[in-house]
Amino acid sequence: MRALQAYRPETAEPLNQLANILLRGSGGLPAGERELIGAFVSARNDCFYCQSIHGAVAVCHLNWEESLLAQVKENFEAAPISGKMKALLAIAEKVRQGGRHVTGDDIARARREGAEELEIHDTVLIAAAFCMFNRYVDGLATWAPEDPEFYRERGRYLAQHGYKAPGKPEDAPAA
Amino acid sequence: MRALQAYRPETAEPLNQLANILLRGSGGLPAGERELIGAFVSARNDCFYCQSIHGAVAVCHLNWEESLLAQVKENFEAAPISGKMKALLAIAEKVRQGGRHVTGDDIARARREGAEELEIHDTVLIAAAFCMFNRYVDGLATWAPEDPEFYRERGRYLAQHGYKAPGKPEDAPAA
Repeated sequence: MRALQAYRPETAEPLNQLANILLRGSGGLPAGERELIGAFVSARNDCFYCQSIHGAVAVCHLNWEESLLAQVKENFEAAPISGKMKALLAIAEKVRQGGRHVTGDDIARARREGAEELEIHDTVLIAAAFCMFNRYVDGLATWAPEDPEFYRERGRYLAQHGYKAPGKPEDAPAA
Repeated sequence: MRALQAYRPETAEPLNQLANILLRGSGGLPAGERELIGAFVSARNDCFYCQSIHGAVAVCHLNWEESLLAQVKENFEAAPISGKMKALLAIAEKVRQGGRHVTGDDIARARREGAEELEIHDTVLIAAAFCMFNRYVDGLATWAPEDPEFYRERGRYLAQHGYKAPGKPEDAPAA
């Protein structure tokens, strides 16, 4: 991702800004749950880099064991998470398949489980955005490190600092 | 799209900035070919609003009959367009299916047909971004006008003015 951003800095800036607002912006879901939606969609899209990095950020925010994340990726309906989170992940999976797959019943279930309108909106947009990020990374066959420790370390860094374009004043390296 | 943007202005800004840079930024493919990639991907994703609006902008830039656009959407390999454009649309379709679908042969074909690296990069990112925009619009079941004349008029406007967030100083309404 950083190589892509260095190659085309004009597009890196809005992409980083979007990631930062979607994953760290104020209002709506807590950061850990947003990262979880991103990691989940990336796993279903089979994007190794995105699911590894955003999974690492998610477990960091949520203070989860990695095994719980694996369980959510495998079968979220059976995982020990809230009914609201299950309903939002169900929407995310439908968005991943295509926007038209989302039904009124999916939205009604999320509302019944206590999801606010803004949280449903953000779930759809986060899932849609990861359908872009995953395709961008894999479509250009970018190299990704294999060592899980790389992602754990970077996950801790990003959980603390958020997403910034490379070379911006804050100078936090981007994901 | 404008209703979504008014609902969540924090995310509208980077989304519009991304659309503007991807579709109107300097360097790489001409604006009409970028819009064509967006309209094509939106058609394959069955997103009525995006294919209508970006198709209208594309024919405006390219000075095409609408029937040629319909032919490209239907079967671009048989359409009277350049070999380079066919190779780029083939990459866009693979990205749409999923980033991992793009092969070295797809990239080699585009290079052979005269596509620059930056044009290939932008094709992948435009296709990926429309996989996001399409899902955002359809995932929230936004209402879209049915009248083709609405899209023709709006297409002419956008071809001239580009994409800006609502309420920005330039005050051009967003797509």
